[in-house]
Amino acid sequence: MKKPLILVTNDDGIAAPGIRALVEVARQLGEVVVIAPDSPQSGQGHAITIEKPLRLHPVKIYPGIEAWECSGTPVDCVKLGKNILLKGQEINLCVSGINHGSNAAVNILYSGTLSAAMEASIEKIPSIGFSLLDFNWDADFEPSKPWISFLMGHVLEKGIPGGNLLNVNIPARKDLPIQGIRICKQANSRWIEEYVTGVDPRGQKYYWLTGKFVEEDEDGQTDIKALKAGYISVVPSHHDLTHYPVMDAMREIERESL
Amino acid sequence: MKKPLILVTNDDGIAAPGIRALVEVARQLGEVVVIAPDSPQSGQGHAITIEKPLRLHPVKIYPGIEAWECSGTPVDCVKLGKNILLKGQEINLCVSGINHGSNAAVNILYSGTLSAAMEASIEKIPSIGFSLLDFNWDADFEPSKPWISFLMGHVLEKGIPGGNLLNVNIPARKDLPIQGIRICKQANSRWIEEYVTGVDPRGQKYYWLTGKFVEEDEDGQTDIKALKAGYISVVPSHHDLTHYPVMDAMREIERESL
Repeated sequence: MKKPLILVTNDDGIAAPGIRALVEVARQLGEVVVIAPDSPQSGQGHAITIEKPLRLHPVKIYPGIEAWECSGTPVDCVKLGKNILLKGQEINLCVSGINHGSNAAVNILYSGTLSAAMEASIEKIPSIGFSLLDFNWDADFEPSKPWISFLMGHVLEKGIPGGNLLNVNIPARKDLPIQGIRICKQANSRWIEEYVTGVDPRGQKYYWLTGKFVEEDEDGQTDIKALKAGYISVVPSHHDLTHYPVMDAMREIERESL
Repeated sequence: MKKPLILVTNDDGIAAPGIRALVEVARQLGEVVVIAPDSPQSGQGHAITIEKPLRLHPVKIYPGIEAWECSGTPVDCVKLGKNILLKGQEINLCVSGINHGSNAAVNILYSGTLSAAMEASIEKIPSIGFSLLDFNWDADFEPSKPWISFLMGHVLEKGIPGGNLLNVNIPARKDLPIQGIRICKQANSRWIEEYVTGVDPRGQKYYWLTGKFVEEDEDGQTDIKALKAGYISVVPSHHDLTHYPVMDAMREIERESL
């Protein structure tokens, strides 16, 4: 039987420990092609490169696996993977990550890791973005691996019903092993931004983004709640941003505008 | 009565004709503060700047109006507007655009214009992204202005029920005046990418993104259908990407993983 074709990308850059861990899991399940940014792209969201050309270089950093570094964003990587490197081939799964740090709640919008997975889902490729709740470069990805393997295997076998994207976040607590998996909704949350301000060596004022993540209380199983309880959160996600429940209430605009 | 405070931004850059047209409408309805990128940021999606500091400079390009150019992305502009320029003040409306070119259908994800509006909506500021279906720098924004004024006035008076973001696209047909406004869902569509490939002056291969927009047939009133019929499309949108209809079907993962 032909092995499934798995595209692997990330936003921390092709040499990050997180993508290496993901490649190690993926190669057990299928034929792997890696295309990832040649530099860190955290916070790039769904950015694409249109004002300048892109570069692709083959890299030999994973023995026996085809890997390419790309000068663009994570979304560019998926577009180039589908349309140049794997043109005409069926990609059975796209996995992105393992991100160093959480992409739960509203972070799905800022995350290059999740935007890459979402780009694959627009192309009807089942896709999963994986993130570990540990920002450290030397984070321990080992405890995640069996769970990631289970989720990838499940999606390869059964697909994702009615959609094509899972946002998976994995707890990283030393005091509590992973308790299991919970299907969740995206928590209602936001960042309270604070800017570090200062004066640069040329005497010019600058503003540097930082902030505090704030969860808002709400009913139901959110990804943030699941993670706090030691569970892996899986949020089935999609790229149709229409807010259907309010459409009827808004139709008065159609009439009033005439 | 205190005039409403309106934050204006865009992704084509602070000197683009589109944002000038939007400022001209907004100043009739409230007190306007402009903060927009100092260079074109099309396709930046929900990108934020975290790896380097940002700069803000006051610019005198709109007589009598406070305006700032920012070295970051459209989303950075909204964050700086809320947390630095207008810290502690209530922003009654954020408008972004007028974008030179369509942001209908899936383009909402790639668009810096709409991502800026979505950032405001995450902060619970009612927000509208406006786009004209004409990519030209010298596009005619005049026919749009009364409709934009109507929509801004409506939202200032009544808000946006249950959410905070409208994706507004405006047709630009010489043969057909604007027919009215339609409340729509986001069309199911995607880009078929093609890359222009070539060799640069240093002999290195490059890939430059281009593509063809493909609408997929579907039932119901989509933004693409409304625009084709000469109507302004208004898609009520939100930032909760959870795909609720599939959540129950996915709970088997919780059980199987144990």
